[in-house]
Amino acid sequence: MGEFDLIAALRARLPAPGPRVLVGMGDDAAVTAPGGVTATSVDAIVEGVHFRRGSTPLEAIGRKALAAALSDLAAMGAEPGEAYIVLGVPPDLNEPGCLELLEGAQELAARTGTALAGGDISRSAVLFVAMTVVGHAPAAESLVTRGGAKPGDAVTVTGKLGGAAAGLRMLEGEAASADLPDEVVSALRARQLDPQPRLAEGRALAASGASAMIDLSDGLGADAGHIAAESGVRLEIDLSALPLQAGVAEVAVAIGEEPLDLAAGEGEDYELLACLPAESVDRARAAVAEAGNSLAVIGRCVPGEGGVKLSAPSGRELRVRGYDQLSS
Amino acid sequence: MGEFDLIAALRARLPAPGPRVLVGMGDDAAVTAPGGVTATSVDAIVEGVHFRRGSTPLEAIGRKALAAALSDLAAMGAEPGEAYIVLGVPPDLNEPGCLELLEGAQELAARTGTALAGGDISRSAVLFVAMTVVGHAPAAESLVTRGGAKPGDAVTVTGKLGGAAAGLRMLEGEAASADLPDEVVSALRARQLDPQPRLAEGRALAASGASAMIDLSDGLGADAGHIAAESGVRLEIDLSALPLQAGVAEVAVAIGEEPLDLAAGEGEDYELLACLPAESVDRARAAVAEAGNSLAVIGRCVPGEGGVKLSAPSGRELRVRGYDQLSS
Repeated sequence: MGEFDLIAALRARLPAPGPRVLVGMGDDAAVTAPGGVTATSVDAIVEGVHFRRGSTPLEAIGRKALAAALSDLAAMGAEPGEAYIVLGVPPDLNEPGCLELLEGAQELAARTGTALAGGDISRSAVLFVAMTVVGHAPAAESLVTRGGAKPGDAVTVTGKLGGAAAGLRMLEGEAASADLPDEVVSALRARQLDPQPRLAEGRALAASGASAMIDLSDGLGADAGHIAAESGVRLEIDLSALPLQAGVAEVAVAIGEEPLDLAAGEGEDYELLACLPAESVDRARAAVAEAGNSLAVIGRCVPGEGGVKLSAPSGRELRVRGYDQLSS
Repeated sequence: MGEFDLIAALRARLPAPGPRVLVGMGDDAAVTAPGGVTATSVDAIVEGVHFRRGSTPLEAIGRKALAAALSDLAAMGAEPGEAYIVLGVPPDLNEPGCLELLEGAQELAARTGTALAGGDISRSAVLFVAMTVVGHAPAAESLVTRGGAKPGDAVTVTGKLGGAAAGLRMLEGEAASADLPDEVVSALRARQLDPQPRLAEGRALAASGASAMIDLSDGLGADAGHIAAESGVRLEIDLSALPLQAGVAEVAVAIGEEPLDLAAGEGEDYELLACLPAESVDRARAAVAEAGNSLAVIGRCVPGEGGVKLSAPSGRELRVRGYDQLSS
């Protein structure tokens, strides 16, 4: 497999990029005309760390790499624009396999209006995909950082949580005893293999006055901690208010874990955690519903220098990965 | 080593980004205000493929990854703006090692006026660095693609060639018998370990009317082939006109190879290959001299559908990596 051949094969399959891309794949650099401001994020997934080829089809690997990157743009409230893909190709991945992976990314790119505008391919001892995405907005004020939450703001979350963690357990065969309807199982598996970047929801929340926003990639506890630290406030979250995806409770029972551990302690749900002035919540809920999703209030911001308080219904302690729980 | 800790440590060491970066490292995405058009390129280097840790210091790995990416911006004639780094960290690379690598990149970033605006860090079985760079220009017409060369244009190259290939042989201990002055040896090693993206030269050539441009990363033969293919012309290159770096001839003799094989058949010199209307050559040479480098005419563009003819002085055949030589 030659690097040039693979790039040529990919290039031949790509649709013409939109009007913003003046020079696409195949030159020293892609040339774009951004217009307003850009939001740029990079995200890498590595075999044996973020996925196993045994339980993840190649097209799902490409799609998920792009989804995770686009989710960061969703969390800014940016409109997706261009994506640039770096592929590390191990000796046992042949050209059709590479194209399958790239087509997974291209499928999501087409669905989200993202132009695959460039890339690089290298041999590597281990499969990895590094994705750079560029989003757009008319002005910086249209975008939402992690740093603007104020005491008194409501803490909200889009959609349902815990599905990605439960889906992973099903894919790895750990939750075989959970007796669930086929459509619930499919939805859980899809949550892990085909995560949806909440781009429309992110733009709706930004337009509704969100003061701070982050996507749930590392887990609710850790991600809430980032907002708390950057905003210089404290987040109090009522875990009994978390919206659980159908089937998460049953999978948790089957593997001997607590449903809230899957929903709050593990990541990859790629829903959005947004802080909003209390008076903006109704408007935001309506805007998110317009985008086809739900918005739940799960807590509030209080004065304090960072930190998150997670209140569990029973008063029990949650195991939250990557996050130091505050007890007070 | 926590990913968050390492990002925080890096963030603490970075200078404040320039006025174009509105939100830098540490949020979901970096926010920038581009102004005109952007040129974006991604480039990855992988352990065991592009470098060996035994012969390449960590800071050189970080610096070289950024240099290779910036070289693509040089080949567009763009002004460097932002860089985003993805680091795959193997188990035997500790936090001080990661910071050493990142500081190598930061050193070149500071030297070239590039802002490290974001990144991602992942565990990985193998060390890799994927670099995304964004350059800027007032308008698309200010940038030079690979596709604009016309029959009659002169083919030119900046600087001296063959140094990176000779430097690699020295670093790997293959050229021990070449008896060279210390400063020549140092310059050859630096060519491999600290390549210089020809950013000022690229802007000078773009402003002087270059019709097509590419950086010499894959080797003169292969890179000339890209211009020929994208421009739909044929490039005739006189290899006896290639400017060789001091010491390349002696290293070639010591390892039993031809100097021109090192200069035309191997890459990583990161000089620029530019096509120019014949009447623009003098102006371009003066502009490149202003940028501190030389410009040599090494051939011309003739009508034809792609392809490169490399004429060797002796009529002998060159072994050119990654490139199918045309014989006619």
